[in-house]
Parts: sequence; structure tokens; C-alpha cells
Amino acid sequence: MIPKGFQFSGVRCGLKNRKNDIGIIVCDEIYPAAGVFTTNQFRASCVDYSRQSLSLGTLKSVLVNSGNANCATGSQGERNTVRMAELAAEAFSIEGPIAVASTGIIGQQLDMTKVEKGIHMATKHLSLDPKPFMEAILTTDLVEKWSAVSNINPTSVTNPKNPNGFTAGEASVYGVCKGSGMIAPNMATMLGFIVTDLDLSHLDTDSLLKSCCDQSFNSLTVDGDTSTNDMVILIASGKSGVKPDLSLAATMIQAVCVDLAKQVARDGEGATKLIEVRVKHATDSKKIARTIADSPLVKTAMFGCDPNWGRIIAAAGRSGVPFDVNCVRLELEMNGDTYLLFEKGQPASFDPSRVSAALKADEIIIHLDCGGASESTIYTCDFGYGYVRINAEYHT
Amino acid sequence: MIPKGFQFSGVRCGLKNRKNDIGIIVCDEIYPAAGVFTTNQFRASCVDYSRQSLSLGTLKSVLVNSGNANCATGSQGERNTVRMAELAAEAFSIEGPIAVASTGIIGQQLDMTKVEKGIHMATKHLSLDPKPFMEAILTTDLVEKWSAVSNINPTSVTNPKNPNGFTAGEASVYGVCKGSGMIAPNMATMLGFIVTDLDLSHLDTDSLLKSCCDQSFNSLTVDGDTSTNDMVILIASGKSGVKPDLSLAATMIQAVCVDLAKQVARDGEGATKLIEVRVKHATDSKKIARTIADSPLVKTAMFGCDPNWGRIIAAAGRSGVPFDVNCVRLELEMNGDTYLLFEKGQPASFDPSRVSAALKADEIIIHLDCGGASESTIYTCDFGYGYVRINAEYHT
Repeated sequence: MIPKGFQFSGVRCGLKNRKNDIGIIVCDEIYPAAGVFTTNQFRASCVDYSRQSLSLGTLKSVLVNSGNANCATGSQGERNTVRMAELAAEAFSIEGPIAVASTGIIGQQLDMTKVEKGIHMATKHLSLDPKPFMEAILTTDLVEKWSAVSNINPTSVTNPKNPNGFTAGEASVYGVCKGSGMIAPNMATMLGFIVTDLDLSHLDTDSLLKSCCDQSFNSLTVDGDTSTNDMVILIASGKSGVKPDLSLAATMIQAVCVDLAKQVARDGEGATKLIEVRVKHATDSKKIARTIADSPLVKTAMFGCDPNWGRIIAAAGRSGVPFDVNCVRLELEMNGDTYLLFEKGQPASFDPSRVSAALKADEIIIHLDCGGASESTIYTCDFGYGYVRINAEYHT
Repeated sequence: MIPKGFQFSGVRCGLKNRKNDIGIIVCDEIYPAAGVFTTNQFRASCVDYSRQSLSLGTLKSVLVNSGNANCATGSQGERNTVRMAELAAEAFSIEGPIAVASTGIIGQQLDMTKVEKGIHMATKHLSLDPKPFMEAILTTDLVEKWSAVSNINPTSVTNPKNPNGFTAGEASVYGVCKGSGMIAPNMATMLGFIVTDLDLSHLDTDSLLKSCCDQSFNSLTVDGDTSTNDMVILIASGKSGVKPDLSLAATMIQAVCVDLAKQVARDGEGATKLIEVRVKHATDSKKIARTIADSPLVKTAMFGCDPNWGRIIAAAGRSGVPFDVNCVRLELEMNGDTYLLFEKGQPASFDPSRVSAALKADEIIIHLDCGGASESTIYTCDFGYGYVRINAEYHT
């Protein structure tokens, strides 16, 4: 189930108050790899460093620390990023490009004594088990987030959370991630690391990662804010010997990415439910879906179990995308049942108390048909007292 | 202080549970006028109707109801908007264009029997006092919102909230507005009605209203959502006989609009403080300011009195506007004191507990200098438990 060709380590060196805070993936060899990075102009030096490491389309290792984002730390911070990679190269005898990712508080220099100690400790715990690494990338996350699919037959791409449904296959994709909103200066960065033993070229990993991120992590919003340190990396060892059809590889990698993105949304700060916004439109369904998913009014209505079609339609209406309101159809789906709220420019006849009761579900799908065949999905969460509590009472 | 040439009326006909819900401004003659309207594609028929009424650049009257937005009500709703204007024309013997504005719940047909009764009642209460009209335009607003300036000497443009500072002048601008966020389906639409006895042409009113709205109501955000019924109207009677220099007229009208916009932000749903976001940038300061003002993370930090520079800088960084983070300077201003939080790519040395104490002020100015001479201001409010309470517990 864990793809062949990778070893993992995770240890605690004291950058966080508890749990592991230094993690590393060491590849058996240099493998094809790709990365996608935050578009925020205010970004940590590790983002630029890792982009540079990937310039030849390969990686030998990924080093991560949590507890300190090493962002807004000036030239000292840049030197510390380079030093982290050097320390890992020395300690693990790595000859090849190393990506570096940091997450945690910003504006403070890394304690390099702790980092160095952690990297050396990590050499003693290298294994095939990714769990200590998974723990080492978390900050404010309430739960660990991982996902895996096995077997290149797409009919057996199964939900890893259901062990009985899992079929060990010829090749696997395994991913871990962290993120539950953006808390700055303790930024809960979105980090994702996906490894596979499929045999893929660098160009394949690059195009697959971009398209899969587009449908998953880039279709995810907790509070509309993006972090300074966001990074998703895909490494393909080829050790399964399986050279897949690209659409099969995309199916597997996307299944992992979407599952991880949903886990992030569900673990959103203060979230009580996962919301999928699915919009149909001729040309710009994603922009409409994102406007709805970012609307605090929609998110508070979902928190309050309020079938408030007006907020959803009005958010779509201000998205800047043209459509004919008189052709719009809005349905909510909970536990497999759909409820029609609005069609042809007017509210449908529905029982608000019945829909409100159904909205207590922990997963809500908003279906908005604005006319058109292209459909986009955005994953988000509701917006309740918990979000305010976490974000107002967390102090610098 | 109330501009010459206008009469007002406001009565209760039962569209709302309490307070006046039908209001009218009747001009002594047909006057030059202009309007700005919501850009939301999902809009009420009164928006299109009033835009049409203003097609010759004049108005004789403005009729407003609260308690029902007459939006998402189909062709029956369109007929009811026309009928409202007809009823007002008959009852008040109005020959000339009439603007119609509605605000309140959406998706329900207006009770035209009540509206007709209200319009007839309103004929008996026409007076020079705008207060009953002001009350008739409110929905979820906690406070009435009005502002006025008098005297065309800009040095005597005074704060109307300080009666001692007010100097009756040759000409006046008087405005009322409503809005405290967008609650749909009971949408707390932004409505603004500004009257003046300055002598202005239609072209003047049009350009003045557009530029003043740009600096005030269009620089205002409570939750990023815009309503289906938003409308601001300016009418100039000319009855003062004063034909002002346009820049003086702009100063007066803008003073009223900015004061009203700040009142709306301060009365934002669940707001405990007014936040002004002032950004300097070479080309696109407004886009940066709006991204900061719409950030739930920034707004919750301000609610929590947290000098969280990371959230402000990161919001600027994701605005899509290029700037050099190493040249950015961030200060907070409370009660006339400024606190430097960030400069040259790194946090400044400041005492968090001292700044946090200062953030208890009910007015906060965020100064972000991204390099460049153009400055934009966006008005908003903080984001606390009250917002969630109002928006999650209000039910359709």
C-alpha cells in the first residue's frame, strides 16, 4: 500500500511544544518529481528554494519542519533554508536535489540548533512507515490526513478509509497533507506530499500534479486566505514497474488529492461540516462556485442549517460571471436526498423545516445549475462560532 | 440644514412588524438627479425600473418600501413595482419620473393592499422633516443613519454629529441610508438617498454621485456580499441658488457619503468596531485594501484585539497586485497613536500586549504602504461572534 522506493522519518526536536516537528522523505534514488507552490507574493524562502531544487524535474529527498514557517525572516531565514538542506544531505548522505518545506509561526528565526539535532535524530528512525513523518508536518490540524489508492485498474480505485474495500495492487499512490485554514502568524499552511511507485516521467508528474491539484487543493477554500508556505509535491519512483496510461495515473492521483482536500475542508477551523459546491455553467463554473464557497453568508447559513437559497443565488449573481437568473436551478443534497430550493427565477415550494432538519448532515452538496455543460466543484466548510473563537482568541 | 425643495413622508402600513415601512421623497419640481445601482445580476425589478426612471436625468419623487425586497418575484413582482409608482403618482398628483426602491425579504410577493393603504396614508404626513422617511427605509439596521453638511465654504464643512460645530450655510447636502450587511432572504440592502439644494446639472449630479460613491459606498465592505436591491440616488433642487464650483460640491457630497458609509460599517452585523484600511500603492491600492478588508482572518484578529501583522501582509500578498514585500510598511492607528508592526520584509520590534490593549479602540486604521503615491481607503468592521449569531440563527 505504501509505494515502493521511499523511506520516511519523523522526530521531535522541540520546535513545537508536542509531537514530531522534523520529517523527511528519502528516495532510494533520484526520481522524477514536480511541485506546485503558493501564488502569494509574500512567501517563505523554502518555497523559492524548493522550486529551484525541482528545476531539473527530480528529487532525492523532502525535508519538512513544523512549528516555524521561516517566513518574514530576511536573509538569515534564506541562509537557514539552505542550511537545512545541507544538514539533511550530510546526515543522510544524500546526493541529489532536496526540497525544503516549513510551516508554523512566521517572523521568527528558526532555532537551527534544534533543527540540526532533529535532522541527526531522524537518521536513526528511517523506515517504510510514513506515520511519524505525517505527524511531523502538522500544526493546528486536529486530525492526521492521509489517503492512498492501489491497483492501476480504475475500477478498483478504492476508498482507503474502508480497509475492507482496499485491494493491494500492482502500484500505489500515497499522500499526506496538513492544513485547516490559514492562521497567521502561526500559519496553518497547506502542505501536501504525494508519492507513487508508478513509472512516470518528469513531464508526466508535472502535468498530472497540476491537473490534479486544480481539481482538489486548488478547488479548496476554508476562509479565502492563502498562505505564504503552501506547497504540494509529487514524486514517482517507478519501482512498481508499471508504466500506466496517463488517464489511469490521473484517476489514481486525483482520487488521493480530492480525498485529502476534503479532509482539509472537513478539518477547517471551527468547521462542523464539509460543503461541496457544484456549479454548472457554459464557461466559468469555477468562478461562480468559488464565490459561493467563500461567502461568509452562505457558510454561516450552512452552519445554522438554514436553507437560505437567497444567499447562494446572490453570491452567484455577484461573481461577475454572466448567466440568466431565470434559468437557474438550485438544489441541496444531503445523505443522498436532493431538495429543490429555487428554479426559473423564483423560490420553489419546499418545506423549510424539513430541509433545515436535513441540513444537520455533516456533508452538504450545493448543486447550482446556471445553464451549461461545464461543471466545477469547490470544497469548503461551514463557518461558525468555532472559527471566530480560534481566530480571534489565538494571539500573537 | 435640510435642503430646500423637498418634502418627505414615512408611515407604517404593516409590511414590517414594527416601525415605518413606506417612505417617499416628493420634489417641489422635477430636478436633476442620478443613481448608482447594484451590479449583482440577480437584482430586483425596482432596480431596473428606477434606472429607467432616471433615463432623462431627472426625478420628481422617490418611493421606498421596507420589509419586502420584491425580488425573485417574477413578472408579478415587475408589475407590482410599476403599480407602486402609479399609486404614488395618483396619490401625490406627481407628474414626472418616480424612482422605486424596495428592501426586505426576498422571494415573496408584496402585499399591494398594504402598499396602497400606506401610500395613501403617506399623503397626509408630507413635511419638511425627513425623520419618518429615514425610519421607513430601515430593516435590520440597529441605528438610523443620516449625515448633512451645510455651507459651500469647504472650511466650514462640519461634522453634523456635533451640533455645536454645525454652521447653517447657503446650501446643504443631506443624506440618509440603510444597510448593515447583506442578510438574505431578508436582505439588508444598501439604500442611500442624498438631496441637495445646490444648483447642479444632471451631468454634474451623475459624475459627482459616481465619484463620491466610489470613495464611500463602493469602498465599503461588511462581508463581501452585495445585495440584489442596492441603490444610491442623488437629487439636486438648485433651490439655494448656489451654483458651486464642482470640486466644492464634490467635497460636500463626499463628506456626506463617507460619513454614511462609515455609519454602515460601524453598524455591520455583529460589528464592535469600525476599521479603515488605507493602502498606498503605485497603481492598484484599492484592490489590496479590499482584499485585506474582506479577509475573515484580519477581521477576526481585529475583533480579538490581536496585532496580527502576518494576516494583513498575507492578505495583501494574495491580492494579485505586485509589490515588493521588502519595501512594505505596516502601521496600526488607534486613538491618534500609530504602532509600527512590520517593515522591510520583517516584523518590527513592538510590544504585543501594548498594541493589543490599544486595539480595544472602537476605530482602527490599518496603514499599509506598499510603495507608491496612490492611496485608497476601504471601510469595514470586525468580525465576531455577533456576525455568526445574526447570520446563522436568522432563519428563512
